[in-house]
Amino acid sequence: MTSVLLTNIGSLVTNDPAHGGPLGEIQDAAIVLDGGTVAWTGRRQDAPAADSALDLGGRAVIPGFVDSHSHLVFAGDRAEEFAARMTGTPYSAGGIRTTVAATRAATDEQLTANVARLVTEMRRQGTTTVEIKSGYGLSVADEARAVRIARQFTEETTYLGAHVVPAEYADDPAGYVQLVTGAMLDAAAKDARWVDVFVERGAFDADQGRAILQAGIARGLQARVHANQLGEGPGAQLAAEVGAAAADHCTHLTDADVDALAASGVVAGLLPAIEFSTRSPYPDARRLLDAGVTIALATDCNPGSGYSSSMPFCIALAVREMHMTPAEALWSATAGGAASLRRTDIGHLTPGARADLAVLDAPSYLHLAYRPGVPLVTQTFIAGRTVV
Amino acid sequence: MTSVLLTNIGSLVTNDPAHGGPLGEIQDAAIVLDGGTVAWTGRRQDAPAADSALDLGGRAVIPGFVDSHSHLVFAGDRAEEFAARMTGTPYSAGGIRTTVAATRAATDEQLTANVARLVTEMRRQGTTTVEIKSGYGLSVADEARAVRIARQFTEETTYLGAHVVPAEYADDPAGYVQLVTGAMLDAAAKDARWVDVFVERGAFDADQGRAILQAGIARGLQARVHANQLGEGPGAQLAAEVGAAAADHCTHLTDADVDALAASGVVAGLLPAIEFSTRSPYPDARRLLDAGVTIALATDCNPGSGYSSSMPFCIALAVREMHMTPAEALWSATAGGAASLRRTDIGHLTPGARADLAVLDAPSYLHLAYRPGVPLVTQTFIAGRTVV
Repeated sequence: MTSVLLTNIGSLVTNDPAHGGPLGEIQDAAIVLDGGTVAWTGRRQDAPAADSALDLGGRAVIPGFVDSHSHLVFAGDRAEEFAARMTGTPYSAGGIRTTVAATRAATDEQLTANVARLVTEMRRQGTTTVEIKSGYGLSVADEARAVRIARQFTEETTYLGAHVVPAEYADDPAGYVQLVTGAMLDAAAKDARWVDVFVERGAFDADQGRAILQAGIARGLQARVHANQLGEGPGAQLAAEVGAAAADHCTHLTDADVDALAASGVVAGLLPAIEFSTRSPYPDARRLLDAGVTIALATDCNPGSGYSSSMPFCIALAVREMHMTPAEALWSATAGGAASLRRTDIGHLTPGARADLAVLDAPSYLHLAYRPGVPLVTQTFIAGRTVV
Repeated sequence: MTSVLLTNIGSLVTNDPAHGGPLGEIQDAAIVLDGGTVAWTGRRQDAPAADSALDLGGRAVIPGFVDSHSHLVFAGDRAEEFAARMTGTPYSAGGIRTTVAATRAATDEQLTANVARLVTEMRRQGTTTVEIKSGYGLSVADEARAVRIARQFTEETTYLGAHVVPAEYADDPAGYVQLVTGAMLDAAAKDARWVDVFVERGAFDADQGRAILQAGIARGLQARVHANQLGEGPGAQLAAEVGAAAADHCTHLTDADVDALAASGVVAGLLPAIEFSTRSPYPDARRLLDAGVTIALATDCNPGSGYSSSMPFCIALAVREMHMTPAEALWSATAGGAASLRRTDIGHLTPGARADLAVLDAPSYLHLAYRPGVPLVTQTFIAGRTVV
């Protein structure tokens, strides 16, 4: 691979503290990519020579988005459920079973094609890393299949056999937990990096969640938790207790929950597109930031509670609805996502980092929030290669 | 021009009452375009022969969006003002003067290039007709230039010399109204179809607005009004009084305002991206619908109060924030926009209509609201030709 100089960058967000400010932003900048990684960043006039050069015409460049929470392995959609919800039918976790039935009935090829379509859609919107969960299979074979398919698209695969108790175990939730921590884990673990559980009324309680996460950890997986989405509950504190990387949703937190997240260093994943699409109150991002909690913004792209694949949309919501500054929102959608996935090679454009970045048809990253809904990403690079 | 059959359409929205339902939707449909107009719509298996055919693979087709309110002739941006607003600085009409200074300083080529960029961006998002206003010139020469540039891109040009009183007339608003109704109107009228005025505290009052609209009407222009955006005021009733086509914003309405709109048939233009980007309360769409008022959804794309060019984003906001059904929102973004512009040839796909349509990477129009922020438009046709 040869080196490439991207130059005439109106504003380059590096998230590199060496360049100062909340985002390590450099005006009138350039970046050199070499061998799939960032070789150099700085002012345009100081740029070293490279094998080739690309003039970006004053456009902004940002680190590629790290979407740390998605559910892409499914079949069908729930557009009608969405339309009904908008006229007053509340969201409940039980709707997941609709997608489970469609997913079980789908072929491998259909599921793979659907993930491919959504990953392409995400890349077009600047996402360069996406975590993908299972959780619409809920049988040994279907969960193993889901993580195996996800693994074709990302290293960040999550085993979420404990998404909800499937209909056939409705009378035997303990039996289902036994399956999730036993045969299903055995089948899914080899293609998964993470274990996750939906800790919520209507899904799993603290004891069940603890058993599931600990079983996964014992198999070498790392933990992340769906916590405190629909009401207060034990999810956030359980995440802290087991040393999870992330507690995602965090819409309903007590002071003790916030304290636990701050003290443990668990990253709070905020997923505002879900509150948008379920017409729910947004998480209190400022309270978390004030407490020193690290925030990751993610889409939670899924066919039920919110089917947006757009990280720019999440940024616009974070600014408008959660009172994050545009800089905080972008940091959380890049470096914050990387922290949530315990990755140090992505989420920033420091020399040595993976050359994952997005080019915006705008002079500054501010336009991500300033121009909501507008597809601003014109090019996406992963490991130094254009994928869009 | 030869005829084209678009077939294997998962769902075709026609807005043609002949096909029933709120949107004249046809499942498993086809459409024939001929000579720039719609020749036929119906079930796929009933489609007549055409000179060529295009298989849309089950995608949805909708009428192209009619964006009845935008301000695209300007220079510069106000991203920093946006960021400040998001941390608490309220929006005021006075910020318009920032853009006036930048616009006056720009060359014709710079302004034309900026409009071209934004019109292209809109077309990529499915907009096939856009109304474009002047209003950042505010001098005889600069307003005439603005409508002349707008006229290169659309028939729906609006003379908005009365956007705000420019700094140099701060002590003589009456003198400015005289200019707007005199020499400036003389210079701008030949390239304008519409006359508009910003009736609002800090901009123009009812008497000034009436004088400006009547002067425009006397010159053969038709009237539209910026009404009731920032607080209650005389705009909506003035629109009814002068027989305007549209009263846009309508965020703060009294019962008498709603009655006046309903009785007069003035279309209420709702611009929810502005409320999003100014963090303001949304208009009460249901109250207007219940009163029988026709609603047009539009972007109001402008660099100050809201810089979104995305009609899909407006639809998502209309559903989430204004409790419009997805069908009402789509109708208002197409047929409603056409009503606002007094156009019968666009906003629907009835045989004889202009062949303006958008293809969605989705099986149904519901996905416009169900998948917020996601760029779903894959192709846009204007008068039967693909422009994206």
